Amino acid sequence: MARPLTATERLDWLQLARSGGVGPRTFLKLLQRFGSARRAFEELPRLAREAGSEERWRRCRRDEAEAELEALGRLGCELLAWSEPGYPRRLAEIADPPPLLAVQGRADLLAAPAIALVGARNASANGRMLAQNLARDLAAAGLVVVSGLARGIDTAAHEGALAAPGLTIAVIASGIDVPYPEDNAPLMARIAATGSVVSERPLGAVPQARHFPRRNRLIAGLSLGVVVVEAAPQSGSLITARLAAEQGREVMAVPGSPLDPRHRGTNQLLRDGATLVESAADVLSALGPLGAVPKASNPRPRPSRAPAPDPPRLPLPAATAAGGDVLGRVQECLGPEPLLVDELIRQCHASTAEVQRALLELELDGRLERHPGNRVSLASA
Amino acid sequence: MARPLTATERLDWLQLARSGGVGPRTFLKLLQRFGSARRAFEELPRLAREAGSEERWRRCRRDEAEAELEALGRLGCELLAWSEPGYPRRLAEIADPPPLLAVQGRADLLAAPAIALVGARNASANGRMLAQNLARDLAAAGLVVVSGLARGIDTAAHEGALAAPGLTIAVIASGIDVPYPEDNAPLMARIAATGSVVSERPLGAVPQARHFPRRNRLIAGLSLGVVVVEAAPQSGSLITARLAAEQGREVMAVPGSPLDPRHRGTNQLLRDGATLVESAADVLSALGPLGAVPKASNPRPRPSRAPAPDPPRLPLPAATAAGGDVLGRVQECLGPEPLLVDELIRQCHASTAEVQRALLELELDGRLERHPGNRVSLASA
Repeated sequence: MARPLTATERLDWLQLARSGGVGPRTFLKLLQRFGSARRAFEELPRLAREAGSEERWRRCRRDEAEAELEALGRLGCELLAWSEPGYPRRLAEIADPPPLLAVQGRADLLAAPAIALVGARNASANGRMLAQNLARDLAAAGLVVVSGLARGIDTAAHEGALAAPGLTIAVIASGIDVPYPEDNAPLMARIAATGSVVSERPLGAVPQARHFPRRNRLIAGLSLGVVVVEAAPQSGSLITARLAAEQGREVMAVPGSPLDPRHRGTNQLLRDGATLVESAADVLSALGPLGAVPKASNPRPRPSRAPAPDPPRLPLPAATAAGGDVLGRVQECLGPEPLLVDELIRQCHASTAEVQRALLELELDGRLERHPGNRVSLASA
Repeated sequence: MARPLTATERLDWLQLARSGGVGPRTFLKLLQRFGSARRAFEELPRLAREAGSEERWRRCRRDEAEAELEALGRLGCELLAWSEPGYPRRLAEIADPPPLLAVQGRADLLAAPAIALVGARNASANGRMLAQNLARDLAAAGLVVVSGLARGIDTAAHEGALAAPGLTIAVIASGIDVPYPEDNAPLMARIAATGSVVSERPLGAVPQARHFPRRNRLIAGLSLGVVVVEAAPQSGSLITARLAAEQGREVMAVPGSPLDPRHRGTNQLLRDGATLVESAADVLSALGPLGAVPKASNPRPRPSRAPAPDPPRLPLPAATAAGGDVLGRVQECLGPEPLLVDELIRQCHASTAEVQRALLELELDGRLERHPGNRVSLASA
């Protein structure tokens, strides 16, 4: 049975999560293997020696973890751990849930029926209007609207939900104390006042390109489904949609004229089987009973936190999607220097699809950087 | 084996086809029952007496038929009969092919691989541009572009095909000597000069609202598939798409923003399973091998007209789609006075779908008029 962490355990989790080389998948594997964050943390130096990369596995100091936890407290943020009852179950189900989630505002919202609205930063005026209207109507129907606080569609979605008036969650790719883009600092404050702002990143962290795809898995993971409003081919919104599909969530897209490249991605989603939506009614109908909001408890109250006697039981995180050997070969071939993806495919003796899958996995783990001209490199730590 | 009609037989066919009460389905049933148009024509008075409606079954006089055939000849038009080898096979396959088809220009085009492009009359500038580009690229790929000479999307489709330069067919709801809309008379002449103009209606006939849905079955029937570019809900283009689906042809639609009502119909088609197309490549890929244009014979030469010894064998026309009894009850309930469709459904003791199906059938036979407020009446003869 899940129980809240003790103060000491929360520090242990934070120390392990903030140590070098410990991404979400690794965290949960270590937790599984060693039974507690404390013991896993203590094993890190040995693991680093075995792996021959002591620098990469730099351990977070106790005082650093204490300082972050205190600062979070001063900001009025909660730090939810994956094993705790307050951690949203939908997010816990994904292949790589964040071990720790900083939440500013109402943490109970994360468990409520939610729908993600995402799309292009450079959205058209029509696209922004559509997103705003959809968000307003979905929020008025009692759904929580999840988005990423970016310019364009994301901003319109948050604004629409707030105008309903309704509830919205911003999942950000920076530390929870770092508004990004800066222009949206007032919007972020308004969201935190009635809804919630969520981040898995350390306090003070600034976002880099590689953090956005990782953030997108949280947007999908918190939601029953994802609606994409305007998206260019190869855009981040399509990554969100793909992750949502992999997580078994409903993928929806708003159609648009082929003359505007901002619709190519959404139209491709429709071709690939996404549900075509033009209105909130279409979204609610696609979600079916999942999207039905309980009248009496809207949004659902937070589950009680009565401590349970047993320690949390830790299921293994889902297996990685790409074959382990292709992922390994891709990592071997890649270095800090940008390499053409075609060249990488040749060197790895794997299919294009296998290599692309491995690259997406690395990207979602924040270990890949993409460069112009279809070139990639390992991310600098 | 099919053989060309003799001059006398052609007059017989024309006389029967132009007689009162003889629509395409009735024509083929009479032909089946009596073995020749001549004998069927001679039986008309008896049939009229039996049906108690002699006025409705007014027979076309021989000199009227002769005059129409001579006038068609002066206009350089052919009159193709359903049983002749030159009659397009795809059109012959539909449930209610026209017994006679007037063709101005190249009759051999009717047998070539063709694609229909249809859509809103009050199309947006973007929609017209899309239709024009699609038609140009499809015509350049060797397909014949079929449309209805209407304002908006149809006009853009014909223009695009001509610009390729490529081949296009206009199927019109008026007599082949009556350009409609009048503004499009120059376009119609350009189409007849290199492609073809087609009509099943008598010379001099002006189009009425009820003729357009009937005409639309010919657009679909001549084509491997139908692409709808912009269509409001309940518009004629959706009838074309529905007929195409019933005829087993590929139905395709171009997506568009939900903010413009001209996209509601096309987006609904996509929701119902139409193939999403953004470019000619998408259309060609949807048609698959059907759309492959033979290199050496583009467009295919007309089949030789060597006379065959046997008289034409007349397969039964396909069964009517609606159950005979519902269609009958609907006809009994309807008169010249407009009746609410809901009231009609009550009176017929049939399901909404059955009644709507019967109404569509009547409409396609030109025997229904629709009125504002969801009311219908039998068409005045």
